[in-house]
Amino acid sequence: MKKHNFSAGPAILPESVKKKAAAAALNYRNKGLSLMEMSHRSDDFTKILETTESLVRELLSVSDDYAVLFLTGGASTQFFMSALNMFNSKDQVGYLDTGTWSAKAIKEAQHYCDLKVLASSKEKNYTSVPRDYKIPSRMKYVHLTSNNTVFGTQIKKWPKTKALFVADMSSDIFSRKLNINDFGLIYAGAQKNVGPAGVSLVIVKKKLLGRAGRHIPTMLDYRTHIAKGSAFNTPPVFPIYVTMLNLLWIKSKGGVKAMEARNKAKAKMLYDEIDNNPLFQGTVAKRDRSVMNVTFLLKDAKLDKKFLSKCKKAGIVGIKGHRSVGGFRASMYNAMELSSVKKLVSVMKSM
Amino acid sequence: MKKHNFSAGPAILPESVKKKAAAAALNYRNKGLSLMEMSHRSDDFTKILETTESLVRELLSVSDDYAVLFLTGGASTQFFMSALNMFNSKDQVGYLDTGTWSAKAIKEAQHYCDLKVLASSKEKNYTSVPRDYKIPSRMKYVHLTSNNTVFGTQIKKWPKTKALFVADMSSDIFSRKLNINDFGLIYAGAQKNVGPAGVSLVIVKKKLLGRAGRHIPTMLDYRTHIAKGSAFNTPPVFPIYVTMLNLLWIKSKGGVKAMEARNKAKAKMLYDEIDNNPLFQGTVAKRDRSVMNVTFLLKDAKLDKKFLSKCKKAGIVGIKGHRSVGGFRASMYNAMELSSVKKLVSVMKSM
Repeated sequence: MKKHNFSAGPAILPESVKKKAAAAALNYRNKGLSLMEMSHRSDDFTKILETTESLVRELLSVSDDYAVLFLTGGASTQFFMSALNMFNSKDQVGYLDTGTWSAKAIKEAQHYCDLKVLASSKEKNYTSVPRDYKIPSRMKYVHLTSNNTVFGTQIKKWPKTKALFVADMSSDIFSRKLNINDFGLIYAGAQKNVGPAGVSLVIVKKKLLGRAGRHIPTMLDYRTHIAKGSAFNTPPVFPIYVTMLNLLWIKSKGGVKAMEARNKAKAKMLYDEIDNNPLFQGTVAKRDRSVMNVTFLLKDAKLDKKFLSKCKKAGIVGIKGHRSVGGFRASMYNAMELSSVKKLVSVMKSM
Repeated sequence: MKKHNFSAGPAILPESVKKKAAAAALNYRNKGLSLMEMSHRSDDFTKILETTESLVRELLSVSDDYAVLFLTGGASTQFFMSALNMFNSKDQVGYLDTGTWSAKAIKEAQHYCDLKVLASSKEKNYTSVPRDYKIPSRMKYVHLTSNNTVFGTQIKKWPKTKALFVADMSSDIFSRKLNINDFGLIYAGAQKNVGPAGVSLVIVKKKLLGRAGRHIPTMLDYRTHIAKGSAFNTPPVFPIYVTMLNLLWIKSKGGVKAMEARNKAKAKMLYDEIDNNPLFQGTVAKRDRSVMNVTFLLKDAKLDKKFLSKCKKAGIVGIKGHRSVGGFRASMYNAMELSSVKKLVSVMKSM
């Protein structure tokens, strides 16, 4: 039976990507070797790495002012690594607290700059994105979590400021168009919209580096990886390959612009059902609803079991809400087809 | 044509491991999902993580005094992370300089302890492992690179000392028996004897942690990963799975003891040919020859091309020496069969 994978991440991958990944795990391009047992200095892997970088540049219109890096350790590593590299201890940096991941980023970064929390929606259990906060003009950077996977909110309008954004875009990068020049740094764990777990994407404005004024271990210094094209040491070969396949798939479907339209259509279909079906309700402020992670409840929690059982019968997986929120969460990353959302809506209608 | 993969790493994987990895990349246990798109909190992946840890414990006889962790960033990250976690800035720690990787470890660790280089073979281009050095009794730790992938040397006898070893065993872990209790910490990038690129193994004595007396970012603190069973954040799901498959394969072949015998037999066969064939010569001191990475030269470099061409025709790949050494290097990790070494020896005899 076809599975409809609404997991928050590691997330759904296109069928064609899975097939090519499986083939490469066994025998890469009929070379008699698995890609996993080929040298990271081989021509084959060098080409994979170069292609992956150029796809990121093409899909997001990233200029040569920026480096594109493939690292490891996820966004959780970038919480401190971004601050360690980008901020001088005297730099005033604003952080917007929009959820679990923002709070973790703040906790790590406060050791490396004069960190100010611009605003927080924590008291409302992060059910909205703060607005009407001021960004002092002397702030160099503003850190944002563009999409909150746990609570299902998303920053729809970037704040107006002369400060550069440092953004955790783990769960919505490649889902919508961006003006990269507004950013000093973007980081993203791959396992939502970019690829499988085990690789992180970093896009960083090169001229901002080298100003932190502190010792940085070689492996934590972005400049190390810039100088060696993400191959200073052995990179995560297979996750990078699957990332390349995924980006090729995005390109073949029309790029980020097409993904944006596709994701909006999926989100509209599901939010319409949540708003129109008297049994269900959304959990966050409508204006801040995430296009990627849709959180909702059954008004009568006694129906939860029945709903989950119907979902299971329909091949719908990964629909349970995050343990810190409860209810349900439908994550609809790029690779999810509209037909899977239709299936979920049909189950909701049948309740 | 069957390929004989002598690559230094990412290294050869058993055929059965590649087949199971490919199947899981497409459809894990007939669940209709790739393992790469399954939650790292799922029962399936939790079981994979637990099984991988218990295999490490069983194969290397690791007691509960030690934590077994699966991290990312390779040995290059452990160069500073081990020091950051284990050493107080006043701790006197001895480092043995046996090659490129030792030197890199020294460079990173010197920021976190009172580091003394015990001895170095750098002046001899690392063609032997230093002996006859003293380890002062007040040293708490001695850092060793157990096998030097680049130069083809290996520490055969661990030094006698009351200090605990901190060891980079990236290229010979699971190749020979160890007395784990002599170690404070062992680290290894997986991509030689453990699995594919993208995951690192750390075995650390728990009671030694928490004494460093400095701020450690959450993701760099071993205690974070101990508390969360290597799943504080999204771990590299697929590389860990392939690691599990590889360890299951080692176990099925008789464990580390059987690997040790197998590796000795392969090394003997190749070193015998190097010593007996008048066209070839080894490049390192005989007593320090690595069982894993065999480095050698053609006495007449004009024959190099002919040899490489014959190797290629025989399906032998990854035989070129490291760019910093030249000549040839045959890496013969656990998964390499004796028949592949026989093939290489037959090509050497045919020169």
